[in-house]
Amino acid sequence: MRDDDEQPVAGNGLLHRRAFIRAGAGAIGSIGAAGALAATRPEWARTPGAAMRGYGAPSPFEDHVQRVGIAAQPGTTGSGASRTPLEHLEGTITPNGLVFERHHSGVPAIDPERHRLKIHGLVKRPLAFTMADLERYPRVTRTCFLECSGNSGAMAVSPEAPQRACGELHGLVSASEYTGIPLATLLDEAGVRETAAWVIAEGDDAARMSRSVPLSKAFDDALLVLYQNGERLRPENGYPLRLLLPGFEGNMSIKWLHRLELTAGPAMSRDETSKYSDLRPDGSALLFTFPMAVKSVITTPSPGLGPLDRGTWEISGLAWSGHGRIRRVAVSADGGGSWTDARLEAPVRDKCLTRFRAAWRWDGRPAVLMSRAVDDAGHVQPDRTTWLDHHGARSFYHYNAIQSWAISPDGTVRNVYA
Amino acid sequence: MRDDDEQPVAGNGLLHRRAFIRAGAGAIGSIGAAGALAATRPEWARTPGAAMRGYGAPSPFEDHVQRVGIAAQPGTTGSGASRTPLEHLEGTITPNGLVFERHHSGVPAIDPERHRLKIHGLVKRPLAFTMADLERYPRVTRTCFLECSGNSGAMAVSPEAPQRACGELHGLVSASEYTGIPLATLLDEAGVRETAAWVIAEGDDAARMSRSVPLSKAFDDALLVLYQNGERLRPENGYPLRLLLPGFEGNMSIKWLHRLELTAGPAMSRDETSKYSDLRPDGSALLFTFPMAVKSVITTPSPGLGPLDRGTWEISGLAWSGHGRIRRVAVSADGGGSWTDARLEAPVRDKCLTRFRAAWRWDGRPAVLMSRAVDDAGHVQPDRTTWLDHHGARSFYHYNAIQSWAISPDGTVRNVYA
Repeated sequence: MRDDDEQPVAGNGLLHRRAFIRAGAGAIGSIGAAGALAATRPEWARTPGAAMRGYGAPSPFEDHVQRVGIAAQPGTTGSGASRTPLEHLEGTITPNGLVFERHHSGVPAIDPERHRLKIHGLVKRPLAFTMADLERYPRVTRTCFLECSGNSGAMAVSPEAPQRACGELHGLVSASEYTGIPLATLLDEAGVRETAAWVIAEGDDAARMSRSVPLSKAFDDALLVLYQNGERLRPENGYPLRLLLPGFEGNMSIKWLHRLELTAGPAMSRDETSKYSDLRPDGSALLFTFPMAVKSVITTPSPGLGPLDRGTWEISGLAWSGHGRIRRVAVSADGGGSWTDARLEAPVRDKCLTRFRAAWRWDGRPAVLMSRAVDDAGHVQPDRTTWLDHHGARSFYHYNAIQSWAISPDGTVRNVYA
Repeated sequence: MRDDDEQPVAGNGLLHRRAFIRAGAGAIGSIGAAGALAATRPEWARTPGAAMRGYGAPSPFEDHVQRVGIAAQPGTTGSGASRTPLEHLEGTITPNGLVFERHHSGVPAIDPERHRLKIHGLVKRPLAFTMADLERYPRVTRTCFLECSGNSGAMAVSPEAPQRACGELHGLVSASEYTGIPLATLLDEAGVRETAAWVIAEGDDAARMSRSVPLSKAFDDALLVLYQNGERLRPENGYPLRLLLPGFEGNMSIKWLHRLELTAGPAMSRDETSKYSDLRPDGSALLFTFPMAVKSVITTPSPGLGPLDRGTWEISGLAWSGHGRIRRVAVSADGGGSWTDARLEAPVRDKCLTRFRAAWRWDGRPAVLMSRAVDDAGHVQPDRTTWLDHHGARSFYHYNAIQSWAISPDGTVRNVYA
């Protein structure tokens, strides 16, 4: 350990990573002798434990880790959203049980033996596939994030910074390892006509959610997903078949996919016109905004976890961009007065959640933590004022501004507009 | 598509990958007109679907996907193993609910508030950590496989090839994204004495399972794991704290970790002497065999899935090595008469499951499918005869020979010694 390890690298206690080793020791009680180890065994080590079982579940001691912010439209139970509790998770993979939900008419209980995928419209050979047909096609595995374009929208429209947990504010984002069939393979088989420029994708839920996908994206990296994190898709994530458009706003990755129609123009469906459109300051709306913007959020420390006590901590968070890879995440502990680069966990993957980490010592004085991500296309995460200036007061979707968490002297972590 | 795409690249129908597009068409019924799409909506699309919920579960239509081969010692329910159903999974991540289990006295129900980790023995400062203490330390995220050294042992000792599903034979292997604290950090804090060369790791289950870990491994890449696939460890995987030794035989990665003792020599504990030792042809035993050998298995097609029908299929499987990265996987459809390279899914990571894929057309004649992995240290997966010649008839652990699946003319897939 070098002598200058405990010298701050930015304001309010941001440290070199090496400083942890010595700094942590103060928090730990040493034990006097090995004899202390002979203390009474806890009851769980005195009798044989539980049996093996077919499908596991989390420890009952982790029952508080649930999807949060579950909110349904009046009169419905399934038209709405639930969010990933980001502050209770680590790494980059979201376990399937906690992947966020956004449904427009609840979760359909689809029988895979009766499900069909149809490809029609401007194609030479309209085709229908059973799930068994799809079993024969070559597959691709890739890991990427999925984010609802309404994620973090409360931060755009609330006059006061909403006091909610990190996941309640920003948890309409998850990341998974997906395995499926390149959409290009099936489009080639149907034979796309020269006049086609769009694919209308429709789900087999009661809402018949549909979106228009540019043909270039369909042929680039669109997947027809069968598996998520190793197992078959969960019902709430599109079982038995969903579209996946890496990097694009979440609701374009149509769940419960049953129909793809090749067309010359976009459908202008409900969920790409009255909803999921960006209102501009002058009252007009952007036609489409497909890629999700570069973004990051500190998940630890954050509201929703207990109050902080003094000493060294690891600042940990997530960064992502629909435009490509994360190149850099800077963190600040003094509200943007000074910044230092966070470490990025490898591999840093295209259109994927990237975990960042930084060392920090909290001395008990007020602090404001921030993170700012930059992607490899050069996009920089804006501050909130810049975002509002650009998007206007009526905008809600595609909020990606820097998040600030304020630490009070009592260790409380609060959401602030800073 | 090139004219030679459907020319085999190896015996018995192994194809260029491009051949899929045309070859698949035969399996699919075309639909005459878009009018056919107006057929009756299925009942799941006629009424609102299910509600959001706090923690999700697989579709009831996937109830058959469970851990398999659950077998406990007589008189116990939790001393034994359950296996990952490899033939029903895809990609490289094993969902937490299906990660294999191997317990020596069941699954303890540990209260994290009362759990302690102690470091003692040949250290300058014996230390005890609560789980809250551990929250303060810097973390690392990495993805790797974990394999029981008894995996596939039935293939070593059964005179006839056992007719079981792929997961029942080879499912004592899983892969996860782990997040934890480098063990080196805590060892540095305790101050390892110069006479120390081993770390004895012990679990807080009723069996007090313990193993001896060379100090070099402890300082290299050993992790004290808190999170698996994003969420806290599941009880059956060591909640609230486990050791992880990437690439080493599974039972060294002690679950429910509560004690680390620094010593000059190994403990010669029960589970590294009477068990988990490799018997040699002359009746002697190898002292220790730590890294898991290079290995691969075809998961699709495989026993446990339905009979095959003719036409094109994707051969898909998993390869891994405790020595490093997978460099190459070759597949054969004619029992080893000819081979072609499979495609490896990127990123190919160190000590991790790697998914491989190859195109194949089955013409209805008998076929024998095989895969052979090579790692970046140059280790080549042996055939079964070579493995038996080297290890002898009484050996059971560390079986890594090439697996052969025979396809009968009726499409049945069987395990064979070929």
